[in-house]
Amino acid sequence: MTTPLRFGLFGTGRIGQVHAASISASPRATLQWVCDPFVDGARSTAANYGGRATAEPADLFAADDIDALVIASPTPTHVDLIDRALDAQIPALCEKPIDLDIARVDALRAKAAASTQPVVLGFNRRFDPHFAELQRRVAEGEIGTLEQLSIISRDPAEPPAAYVAVSGGIFRDMTIHDFDMARFFLPDIVRVTARGANQFSSAIADAGDFDAVVVTLEAAGGELVTIANSRHSAYGYDQRFEAFGSGGMLQIGNIGPSVITAHTASLVEARVPYHSFFLERYGDAYRLELEAFIDTIAGEPSRSPGFEDGRAALILADAAEQSARTGRTVDVDLNL
Amino acid sequence: MTTPLRFGLFGTGRIGQVHAASISASPRATLQWVCDPFVDGARSTAANYGGRATAEPADLFAADDIDALVIASPTPTHVDLIDRALDAQIPALCEKPIDLDIARVDALRAKAAASTQPVVLGFNRRFDPHFAELQRRVAEGEIGTLEQLSIISRDPAEPPAAYVAVSGGIFRDMTIHDFDMARFFLPDIVRVTARGANQFSSAIADAGDFDAVVVTLEAAGGELVTIANSRHSAYGYDQRFEAFGSGGMLQIGNIGPSVITAHTASLVEARVPYHSFFLERYGDAYRLELEAFIDTIAGEPSRSPGFEDGRAALILADAAEQSARTGRTVDVDLNL
Amino acid sequence: MTTPLRFGLFGTGRIGQVHAASISASPRATLQWVCDPFVDGARSTAANYGGRATAEPADLFAADDIDALVIASPTPTHVDLIDRALDAQIPALCEKPIDLDIARVDALRAKAAASTQPVVLGFNRRFDPHFAELQRRVAEGEIGTLEQLSIISRDPAEPPAAYVAVSGGIFRDMTIHDFDMARFFLPDIVRVTARGANQFSSAIADAGDFDAVVVTLEAAGGELVTIANSRHSAYGYDQRFEAFGSGGMLQIGNIGPSVITAHTASLVEARVPYHSFFLERYGDAYRLELEAFIDTIAGEPSRSPGFEDGRAALILADAAEQSARTGRTVDVDLNL
Amino acid sequence: MTTPLRFGLFGTGRIGQVHAASISASPRATLQWVCDPFVDGARSTAANYGGRATAEPADLFAADDIDALVIASPTPTHVDLIDRALDAQIPALCEKPIDLDIARVDALRAKAAASTQPVVLGFNRRFDPHFAELQRRVAEGEIGTLEQLSIISRDPAEPPAAYVAVSGGIFRDMTIHDFDMARFFLPDIVRVTARGANQFSSAIADAGDFDAVVVTLEAAGGELVTIANSRHSAYGYDQRFEAFGSGGMLQIGNIGPSVITAHTASLVEARVPYHSFFLERYGDAYRLELEAFIDTIAGEPSRSPGFEDGRAALILADAAEQSARTGRTVDVDLNL
Repeated sequence: MTTPLRFGLFGTGRIGQVHAASISASPRATLQWVCDPFVDGARSTAANYGGRATAEPADLFAADDIDALVIASPTPTHVDLIDRALDAQIPALCEKPIDLDIARVDALRAKAAASTQPVVLGFNRRFDPHFAELQRRVAEGEIGTLEQLSIISRDPAEPPAAYVAVSGGIFRDMTIHDFDMARFFLPDIVRVTARGANQFSSAIADAGDFDAVVVTLEAAGGELVTIANSRHSAYGYDQRFEAFGSGGMLQIGNIGPSVITAHTASLVEARVPYHSFFLERYGDAYRLELEAFIDTIAGEPSRSPGFEDGRAALILADAAEQSARTGRTVDVDLNL
Repeated sequence: MTTPLRFGLFGTGRIGQVHAASISASPRATLQWVCDPFVDGARSTAANYGGRATAEPADLFAADDIDALVIASPTPTHVDLIDRALDAQIPALCEKPIDLDIARVDALRAKAAASTQPVVLGFNRRFDPHFAELQRRVAEGEIGTLEQLSIISRDPAEPPAAYVAVSGGIFRDMTIHDFDMARFFLPDIVRVTARGANQFSSAIADAGDFDAVVVTLEAAGGELVTIANSRHSAYGYDQRFEAFGSGGMLQIGNIGPSVITAHTASLVEARVPYHSFFLERYGDAYRLELEAFIDTIAGEPSRSPGFEDGRAALILADAAEQSARTGRTVDVDLNL
Repeated sequence: MTTPLRFGLFGTGRIGQVHAASISASPRATLQWVCDPFVDGARSTAANYGGRATAEPADLFAADDIDALVIASPTPTHVDLIDRALDAQIPALCEKPIDLDIARVDALRAKAAASTQPVVLGFNRRFDPHFAELQRRVAEGEIGTLEQLSIISRDPAEPPAAYVAVSGGIFRDMTIHDFDMARFFLPDIVRVTARGANQFSSAIADAGDFDAVVVTLEAAGGELVTIANSRHSAYGYDQRFEAFGSGGMLQIGNIGPSVITAHTASLVEARVPYHSFFLERYGDAYRLELEAFIDTIAGEPSRSPGFEDGRAALILADAAEQSARTGRTVDVDLNL
Repeated sequence: MTTPLRFGLFGTGRIGQVHAASISASPRATLQWVCDPFVDGARSTAANYGGRATAEPADLFAADDIDALVIASPTPTHVDLIDRALDAQIPALCEKPIDLDIARVDALRAKAAASTQPVVLGFNRRFDPHFAELQRRVAEGEIGTLEQLSIISRDPAEPPAAYVAVSGGIFRDMTIHDFDMARFFLPDIVRVTARGANQFSSAIADAGDFDAVVVTLEAAGGELVTIANSRHSAYGYDQRFEAFGSGGMLQIGNIGPSVITAHTASLVEARVPYHSFFLERYGDAYRLELEAFIDTIAGEPSRSPGFEDGRAALILADAAEQSARTGRTVDVDLNL
C-alpha cells in the first residue's frame, strides 16, 4: 500500500464537509491542512477529520507537507486559489464553477493548460456509478449512434434568497451540472437555445433569476440535448437521464431512499418520495470523484473533468443566459 | 360471414348477465332463449340482449332453434342441465364447478366422454390474453423446462355469508380457478398439499370455511406449484402469476384500471388501486371464452377446457380440502 | 336506442379504413356512403363496412341520407370538403391538418365559426383513455398548479420518401399531434422555440426536412412544454407524457403489446418491444374520437377539438418551422 | 470515540474473509487474532486485515487481548467453540447453523441461556437495509394485521457436490435463512409443511437431497408463510419478500447490479441480470450485522438474533425435512 496523499482543504461549508469526510474515509488520503477564514470552521473540521487548521491560505502554500488541494471555498476565491496552486505545482480539485466571469477564467486558461500538475473540476455527477455506467455503455455502442439526450433535473426546494443572490443565476449554478453531463457524452456542443420562466418563486423573480428553465443543446454531429430544470419538486430530488440512439435507448430513473413498494386501499406500487438532499443521491459520486482525482495524480489516464471542462460548462451557461434573454439561438465554439 | 349461432342461456344472475352480454356483442352469436325460474330476470335479460324468456328449462330443450347452450344457473342445476344437453346433442358451455360432489360428476363422465357434441367448462382465465400469452411462451420453450409456478390470487372482499354457505368452500369456489390455471401449464397434477387459516372473517369461520389458504401442487414431472389465496385484499383484486424454468422466468403482475404513475410529497411511482371487481380484470377473458367455444363448435381444435378439466379441478379441490383437514399430502390420479 | 347516424366517408386510404371500421363497429353509426376518386377503394370499403360507393364528392352532398361526414381524404382536399359540409350544414370530422397553408385555413375560419353544425378535428390522442385520464387528473388539481409538460414522441420508422414530400414537414405532419396535446392541457400557447436536426435519414434530409426536432412552448401563465421527436425508434412507438406541477407529477410511460416481464441469463424485467404501428397504440382513441363526435352532434358539450384547435396547431407548426429555420423564438397569439 | 473492540476470528474460508473485511473496515473493531487449522489461511488473512495468526483455537481462549469472537469455521466446530466462548465469557457471533444436530444444540442451550455474555447468530439477512425497513414498517402497522408472508429465494447456481454432501440438506443449509426471515416477522411458528423435488440436478439427487422445495409455515396467530426455493436461477440471485396484511401489502423485489433500463429492437425496459453471488446482494448486511453485534456488546437492546433463534431455525429445518419425507404436517413448539 502506498503512502496516503496529504490533502489541504479550502472551505469548510457544506461542500467542504463532504470533501473532508471523503478524504478522511479514503485509505489513500489524509487531511493535513484545513483552511477557512472562519477559523472555527477550520478547527472543528480538523478536529473531526484530522489535520491542522488555519485562516490563512498562505499557510497551505507555504507548507511542505501537502500533496494535493481541494478548493471548496466560495466561488469568488476559486481563480486566485487555482492560480496559486498552479504556481506551487500542487494538484488541485476545484468545486464548480471556476468563476462566474468567463473573462477571469480565460485569463487563467493558458497557465492551466501549460501546467504539469492537474487541475480538475468538481463535476461529481460524472462519478455517480449509474451515470458512469450509462456513459460507458453508450460509448461501447450499445445503442448505436447517439442521437438525443434527455435530462430532467429538479431540486427538492428552492435555495435561500441569500444564496440565489450570489449564485450567478440558475444556468451557472444549477444547469451547469447538466451542461457538464451533456458534455460527458457529447463534448463538442456547438449551439445553445434556452428559455426561462418564473413559475412559483417571487424571491427568485425578485432576484431577476428564473425558477424553471428549458435548454436545447446541439452537438457537432447534429445530436440534440434537452434539459428541463426546476428549482422545486414536491416529490424530492428529480434526477433523470436518458440516451437515445439509432439502435435503442438507455434510461436512468430516479433513485430514492427505499426500494419497497407499498399497496394500500389508496395507492399501489408506491414508494416513499425521492431524496430531499443532493448528498443522499450523490454521496457515492463525491467519494468516487476524490478517488479519480487521486488516480489522476498517480499518473493514470485522467477520468476527471479538467479546467477546459469547467470553462466549457461556464460558456454554455453564459450562452443559455444570453439565449433566454434575447430569444435567439447562440452559437458557441468550445475549441477556440 | 356465416349465420350467427343461436344461444340458449340458463341463469340470469351476475354471471348470466356477463354471458348474455358476450353473446349479444359477438357477431357470431345471437341470444335466442333465456331461462330462469325467476322469470322476471329472464324477461329483462331478453329485453336487453334479445331472445325469448321462459322459466322452464324444458322449453329450451324442446325448441328447434337453439345451436348452443350456456349454463350459468346455480351449481346444483349444472349436472342435470349438462345431462339434458348431452341428450339433446347441443353443445354446452357450463360455468364452473360442474358440481360440488365428485360422485355426481363421475356419474356423468362416461356419457360426456362419449358425446359427439362438446361440453366445455367456464374457466375463463385461460382466455385472459395475458395468461394465454404466458402459457404460449412457456410452451414455446422460452424459459426451458418448466420447474415452478407461483400463483397469488386474492379477492377484493369476502363474499356475502349466504354465498359462502353454498359455495362448497374456498377450495371448490375460489382456488378452483387457480387449480385450472396450474393445469393449463401442468395438466398432470399428482399430489396436493394444502393449509388453511381463519385470519379475518368470523362469518367465514362460522361457516366452517377458511378465509386464506396455501396450496402446493406437484406435477408428474416433479414440478412444484404454489398457490396463495385470501378472501380479501385492501388494494384490490390481486392476480399474479409466474412461471420459473431452467432457463428463466416469465411474470405477470397485477393489471389495474390506470397506467398513470403519480409522484407527490407523500408517495412516488404510485398507481390507483387494482380492480375491485373480477369483471374489470377478466372482462376480455369472458368474451374470448365465448369465441373459443364457438370455434370449438365450428370444428376447430378445441382450446376450451372440457368436462375432464372441470372434473380434474374438482378432484384437486377435494384433495386440498382433505389435505388441509388432515395435515397429510394427498395423492391424486387425474387419469384414472 | 336512437337511430344510428348515417355517415358519409371521404377517403379510403389507411386512415379512411380506420374510420370506416369505427363507424361500422359503433351501434350509434352506420356507413351510408363511401367516396374515393379511386372508386375501387370506395367499393371494397363499402363491401366491408356497408354503404354506397362513389368517386364523386358531389354525390354525397346531393344525398339526403347523410347525417355526418368523416373527411379522411388527402390534406389538399380538406378545406374544400369542409367548406361544402358547412354549406350543406352537415357535421364533419376532418383529419388533421386542415391544410398545410394557414392562409387557406384563415379564409375558411369565419365561416366555420358562424356554422351551427360542428366541424371537429381528428386529433385522436385527446381520446386515448390514458391521456384523457391524465388531463382530467391535472384539471382536478391533483398536482397543484401545472408548471411543465414533457412530451416524448418518436415514430417506429421513417415514412416513405413520397409521403415525406407531401407531408408539409415534420412539424406540420408529426409534431402537430404533440402541439395539440400540449394545448389539451395549456390551450393558450404564446411562444414557440424549435430546433431541428438531420440525424439518420438522407431521404428526409434530401427533402429539406428534419428527422428529429425539439420544441419548447411557453403558455400564457409561464408554463413550459418540451417536445422531443424522432422519425425513428428502434424499440417501437415511443409515446410518453408527463405533467409536472407545484404539488407533484403525473406520468404515462409507454404502453406495449405485452405486460409480461421476462427474466433470463441475458436480461431481466424485460418486455417485448413497443408497438410498431400507431393503430396498435391508438386504436381505442380512434373509436372514442368517433363516439365523442356523435356526442357533439347529439348536442352534448363538445369534447372534440374544433376548427380553432386545428388552426392553432397549424400556427404552432408554422412558428416552430420558422423558429428552427431562423434561430429565433417566435411569438404567437392564438386568440387573434 | 471509544476504543475499538479486539476481535478473534475462527475460520478463514469464504465467509471468514467477509467477516475479516467487516472487522477491518469498522472504526469500532480491529482484528486481533485469526485462527485456522490451515495456518496459511490464517496468516494471509492476518496479513490483509491485521492480527496474529494461529492454527490453535486454544491460543485465542488463552489470550488476554480479545473482546469478541466471530466463529466462521466449519459447522461441526460451532458447538465446541461457542461452549468455550461461554466458558471464557467472551461475546461470540457464530455463523449459522449452530449445528446440524438439534441434540447437540439442545445440550448447549441452558448454558447459553445462563450466560451473561451474548452469543449471536449470523442470520445476516435481518440486517439487509431493505428487509430491515420492511420489518420495521410492518411492525409499525403500515399494513394492519400481518396475515401472509411470501418468500422466494433462489440461488444463482447449485453448490459443488462436496458442499452438498456436508450441508445437512437444503432445508438446513439454504431454507434456514428463510426460516429465520419468517421468524423475524413471526417468531412463534407452530406448524411446518414442506414438499421437495428433484428438478434439475443429478448430483443433488444422488446425494439424497432436494434441489427445489416449497414450505408452508403457520404462526401462532394463524398467519401463513410460503417459501419457494431453488438451487439454481438462470437470471441470477432471486431474493424476493412480501408481507400481506389486513390493510395492504409491502413488497421487495430483486435488487441487481444496475438500475439502467435498456430498450432495443429485441426487448424494452430490460436490466442486466441480478447478482450472481450472495455477497453482492448482502454485502451491506454483513457489515451491519457486525455493527449490531458491537452494539449488543455495548449493552444496547440487542437487535441480533441469538442462540434461541439459531435453535428455532434448526427446529424448523428438521420439521420441514420430516414433513417433506413423510407427507405430513409437523407441529413444533419453539417455546418448549
